Amino acid sequence: MTPELDAFYRVLERRRDVRAEFSGEPIDEDVLRRVLGAAHTAPSVGMSQPWDFVLVTDRDTRAEFREHVHGEREVFASQLDGERDATFRRIKIEGILESSLGVVVTYDPERGSPAVLGRHAIADAGLYSVCLAIQNLWLAATAEGLGVGWVSFYREEFLARLVGLPDGVRPVAWLCLGPVRELQQVPDLERHGWRRRRPLDEALHWEQYGT
Amino acid sequence: MTPELDAFYRVLERRRDVRAEFSGEPIDEDVLRRVLGAAHTAPSVGMSQPWDFVLVTDRDTRAEFREHVHGEREVFASQLDGERDATFRRIKIEGILESSLGVVVTYDPERGSPAVLGRHAIADAGLYSVCLAIQNLWLAATAEGLGVGWVSFYREEFLARLVGLPDGVRPVAWLCLGPVRELQQVPDLERHGWRRRRPLDEALHWEQYGT
Repeated sequence: MTPELDAFYRVLERRRDVRAEFSGEPIDEDVLRRVLGAAHTAPSVGMSQPWDFVLVTDRDTRAEFREHVHGEREVFASQLDGERDATFRRIKIEGILESSLGVVVTYDPERGSPAVLGRHAIADAGLYSVCLAIQNLWLAATAEGLGVGWVSFYREEFLARLVGLPDGVRPVAWLCLGPVRELQQVPDLERHGWRRRRPLDEALHWEQYGT
Repeated sequence: MTPELDAFYRVLERRRDVRAEFSGEPIDEDVLRRVLGAAHTAPSVGMSQPWDFVLVTDRDTRAEFREHVHGEREVFASQLDGERDATFRRIKIEGILESSLGVVVTYDPERGSPAVLGRHAIADAGLYSVCLAIQNLWLAATAEGLGVGWVSFYREEFLARLVGLPDGVRPVAWLCLGPVRELQQVPDLERHGWRRRRPLDEALHWEQYGT
């Protein structure tokens, strides 16, 4: 394996979903531009590039989002019982204020319409493209020494209103982004006993599912 | 920028959605394992890892899928008129038989249920995780010198039946995978005049969408 290939795989392995480790330091402008540029080089169905990125620094906006997220945390917690509830309460689910920047990634189904090549049979293909951009962003941030934390404890209508999305444009993610003190080696949910990773071989099938 | 960081970004830039360039040569086993392992290191909502990979080499299965895809190609073409139709007819949409392997990536919403941490408010969050795995696979393949082509001209029910998915498990992608003679520098859809990429700055907004 070449040093470049080895370095590439190490980025994938180092990448974590960050909550507690943000330092709050500002992000270098050139670095931010490269990370967003990485997202923008992702593939997309019919070259529709249906993503947008709303960069949120405003403390009030972030505080309002955080309050909403904590309400949704309670909604989820109320569905748990016993051990699950106790385990969940130990887990930090967001670093909205501690990170340097919130990146709201959105999906516009009208981009490239009416005839989006490759989407007529699978409506969700546009959403899938947005996720590919998110993973590019996540890996580039990791390669640059930044951390990313995807927050998903929110109602889409709330976040859409908070950052002024037009009708029809859907929020796909709130990403906390910024420099970190360190990256954990083991994912938080595993460290805190929520759930363990499954072996790769369990996910592999030959010719037919289940074989 | 360090040589490792530079090499990382070059992988993102080299990555293409491949149709015509597959050589059909076999994939080295260690390389295939690393590429699938890369997919499996992706983040997932609530650590659910809801993906599976069905590796399809069988010629009959691939031929049957290809025939279905070409039927769907005609469905899409019939919705186009004039210039769009003529442009579309020049574009190759799949390399199912020319590639070395088909990888059907699936989503199992039951994985980690009933309480998937981070999914109670956003049902699609599980699908999003599967797409993150796909992008990891795509980039790792590119870093290894392989090509990937995402085929989306199909009906989910057809592909689910073809590879024997259990009820409730959804196909998210058919990825053509294998060595390539070359990677195009400009995406096919741009080279063939279907659609051009938009500038990054059009996708960036500060604090609120549209600003």
